Amino acid sequence: MLVGMPGSGKSSIGRRLALRLGLPFLDADTEIEAAAGLPITEIFSRYGELHFRDGERRVITRLLAGPPVVLATGGGAFADDRTRAAIRRSGAISVWLRCRLPVLMRRVAGRDHRPMFLNADPAEVLQRLMTARHPLYAEADLVIQCSDESPDSTTRRVQEALEGWAPPARLPVTLGERSYDIVVGEGLLERAGALLAPVLPARRVVIVTDENVAPLHLPALRAGLEEAGFSTLAEIVVPAGEASKNFAVLQSVLEQMLGAGADRRTTVVALGGGVVGDLAGFAAAVALRGLPFVQVPTSLLAQVDSSVGGKTGINLSLGKNLVGAFHQPRIVLADMATLRTLPPRELRAGYGEVAKHGLLSGETLWRWCEANGPALVAGDAGCQGHAVLESCRLKSAVVAGDEREESAEGGRALLNLGHTFGHALESESGYGGLVLHGEAVGVGLGLAAALSARLGQCSQELPGRVISHLEACGMPARIRDLPRTYSTAALLGRMRKDKKVRDGALRFVLLRGPGEAFTAGDVPVAMVESLLRDEGAEA
Amino acid sequence: MLVGMPGSGKSSIGRRLALRLGLPFLDADTEIEAAAGLPITEIFSRYGELHFRDGERRVITRLLAGPPVVLATGGGAFADDRTRAAIRRSGAISVWLRCRLPVLMRRVAGRDHRPMFLNADPAEVLQRLMTARHPLYAEADLVIQCSDESPDSTTRRVQEALEGWAPPARLPVTLGERSYDIVVGEGLLERAGALLAPVLPARRVVIVTDENVAPLHLPALRAGLEEAGFSTLAEIVVPAGEASKNFAVLQSVLEQMLGAGADRRTTVVALGGGVVGDLAGFAAAVALRGLPFVQVPTSLLAQVDSSVGGKTGINLSLGKNLVGAFHQPRIVLADMATLRTLPPRELRAGYGEVAKHGLLSGETLWRWCEANGPALVAGDAGCQGHAVLESCRLKSAVVAGDEREESAEGGRALLNLGHTFGHALESESGYGGLVLHGEAVGVGLGLAAALSARLGQCSQELPGRVISHLEACGMPARIRDLPRTYSTAALLGRMRKDKKVRDGALRFVLLRGPGEAFTAGDVPVAMVESLLRDEGAEA
Repeated sequence: MLVGMPGSGKSSIGRRLALRLGLPFLDADTEIEAAAGLPITEIFSRYGELHFRDGERRVITRLLAGPPVVLATGGGAFADDRTRAAIRRSGAISVWLRCRLPVLMRRVAGRDHRPMFLNADPAEVLQRLMTARHPLYAEADLVIQCSDESPDSTTRRVQEALEGWAPPARLPVTLGERSYDIVVGEGLLERAGALLAPVLPARRVVIVTDENVAPLHLPALRAGLEEAGFSTLAEIVVPAGEASKNFAVLQSVLEQMLGAGADRRTTVVALGGGVVGDLAGFAAAVALRGLPFVQVPTSLLAQVDSSVGGKTGINLSLGKNLVGAFHQPRIVLADMATLRTLPPRELRAGYGEVAKHGLLSGETLWRWCEANGPALVAGDAGCQGHAVLESCRLKSAVVAGDEREESAEGGRALLNLGHTFGHALESESGYGGLVLHGEAVGVGLGLAAALSARLGQCSQELPGRVISHLEACGMPARIRDLPRTYSTAALLGRMRKDKKVRDGALRFVLLRGPGEAFTAGDVPVAMVESLLRDEGAEA
Repeated sequence: MLVGMPGSGKSSIGRRLALRLGLPFLDADTEIEAAAGLPITEIFSRYGELHFRDGERRVITRLLAGPPVVLATGGGAFADDRTRAAIRRSGAISVWLRCRLPVLMRRVAGRDHRPMFLNADPAEVLQRLMTARHPLYAEADLVIQCSDESPDSTTRRVQEALEGWAPPARLPVTLGERSYDIVVGEGLLERAGALLAPVLPARRVVIVTDENVAPLHLPALRAGLEEAGFSTLAEIVVPAGEASKNFAVLQSVLEQMLGAGADRRTTVVALGGGVVGDLAGFAAAVALRGLPFVQVPTSLLAQVDSSVGGKTGINLSLGKNLVGAFHQPRIVLADMATLRTLPPRELRAGYGEVAKHGLLSGETLWRWCEANGPALVAGDAGCQGHAVLESCRLKSAVVAGDEREESAEGGRALLNLGHTFGHALESESGYGGLVLHGEAVGVGLGLAAALSARLGQCSQELPGRVISHLEACGMPARIRDLPRTYSTAALLGRMRKDKKVRDGALRFVLLRGPGEAFTAGDVPVAMVESLLRDEGAEA
């Protein structure tokens, strides 16, 4: 369906488009007049605008529920919040014919006798309408910038855009009142405002990002928000890296967002990797006891893992993520375009969590990983999109069953596959970038598989499969591949301090095979010790 | 019903007590044998202990559901978690006959042939049982310390204790999964372990308190927890006063509690006034993404207001309570005994919130306040208990309807009666103790009533009634009663920064009369200005 200002050409383009597509053309205003048996001006003057909009919404909903058509709507229809929501629910593709004021003026001049132009300066009327409606029209699925070219050439461009249009994939995360969608696709930053507006209480945000990400992606996000009339109260840029997840930075972020006037209807947008997501999400959770929150993850790790599930938090010197909150986002925008700016090593490290999800999900996804992992880390956007979607599907299903990690066995705990080893390696390496989280997790996956095999829980081949796969993706696969040495005793000590430790026993997530993970609290320490030694840790 | 160790005299005291009370005496073990048609030793050896405990629980539940009796139970019955819960639900009064080991030994020696003493050292068996069971027996409603005195004199003491026993009042706060009880009574600190054990995941706590409260009440709480076998991982003492509600103290509290080994089953107990409750509650909300939490408010203000409703948080230099979380306690213990150590001025200040609840509740509670407020602030424990209960009843009903303060009009917002003015006066006075929160709220109540009267919303008499009542309770009642001067412009500026401001308009909670509060966002600034001047603020 076509939306836009008076004079934008909805009818003339619509008729031509319908011919080209072999579909009927309908004009919503004509249908409304037919249904009411009254001209629109008459409905307006007799019953008022509210009544008209209700009727308009009913007619449009009915038309969109029928067989496919090209539908042109009155200029005010798509600007009505409830009508716009009904159109969105119908699944129709909405196309905004966007014109600048001089173009509209030339078209409207002299030949338009609508009541809105009676006794008024058309330029003033149009400008006022544009200011009010453009942010709402921006929520259309497609935006076609129109000029003085011929209607046929505009129609051709609309047809091309329709043919080339693939809606971003949407994965619903089902958490009752806190349910939300993960949107996966290309160019989402530029469309951020249109995607966010339907799920936020107000078009008002603060953005939190870091020094690396800001120059790369903040301009696109800013423009995408502006297009839909969002006001950005503050753009808060923190230093990049894990060290920003501390109390001092948290306090500074909170002071900046509240000092800029954030109120309870202001949304916190996290633009960046896992650090920014955890920090901004926690700030959103505690500012004024909870502000709405949106994740725009720009790293593979964040897209497949940390942006899903609602865990937010900061570190203490005692350990990582010891302070935080469960705070679900209103929506997650995973823009594949952002992965193209990611350093290759970070892309590979993020793949560690994808491989984990493959092992947790079952033979299908794990075999897909073995077949496509190397292409993914080499930059194949199709593979990346599939991996993000499937990772989010797995993780969100687990989260939906155990939101606050309260399940004693299984549940969210299984997502820690490879993490007891991984956290030990990572914390022992000091978070300075020597070993990245995803790299540590990758090595941890191999160790978890090896431990499972030694305990007779899985086939003796599985550890080798895991290690070969990581190597094929260019990742460190074993302790001895890491750029430093580790003391076995130090690693064991780290494992004992893990947050998941219960009553002092070492807990591991083990595998019976891909898709068959389980938690075990009774693994002999001596076996873990000899495994670490055999894999390259020092005595 | 009587519980205790073998040899504690449950049967001999029970028979005597039944005679004195004119009730039948029943022995649970005899009833179980009758129901099963087998001796207990036989049930144990044939079917095992689990089966026996299930049968025991059924028999005890049936007996307690019948007409009043004196019931003696086997030593293991009250130590069984599910049986203890069934007894609690039945409403029976449980009495623990507590004996020290030598007393038990003398009674058991030679004349007890229970299977548990076969081929074993009775002292060792008894000591082991005492260690395991005393923390559980401690959950009995009454504890009678027994010695070698005659059974008749012990029986007399049990009877006296029963006659003198009034269970603490319990007010349920209904919030679905997060429902909890507010317990109001005398001597609750000494019984803390018994009261907490049934609602916590483990008998393991960290206590947060302040330098003023610790010497007064920490010993009683510590003893009360120890009696029920609680281990206290840390006692964290923060400086007294509002200044402790900041990031530095929060971080230190979190580091102390997690450094002491708090895990997800460790409960944070806040012992103190509003500052300790807000700070400890927020620490509990964010430590490991949420630990169980218990409020033990020791000031009137905390008992009637800040400990109810789940609001926790700290201050920023930008304003009070700007950072925080909704985190409901598992239980609140309001011990009237703690109010006796409160400085009189703090008691009076706390009364400011009681008066607010009176105005919000309706003529009944407001008239009760007018009649009993002066006695309450003079120290009448009966009045204090009533005020705490009725305040919590009002506040918890409001909170249950609007837990996260999302209602646009009414709901939790009404609890801010007097607070727009009060916060302005308090923040302008600098939180240094010159004007206490409750004092500022009291003055704010008078101003809210006066503003309501000027707007023609309530009777012209109401402001005078409010002011006279505050004066009768020895509280500052008008701006000119406060120990400093205020600039009208400064107060208006503070009001504009209030967290409740929406889209820049000044919002007030106004009154049509006691019990008829409403929010108004359209009060003319000039009217507020002239009111402030008339009440003593400077131009």
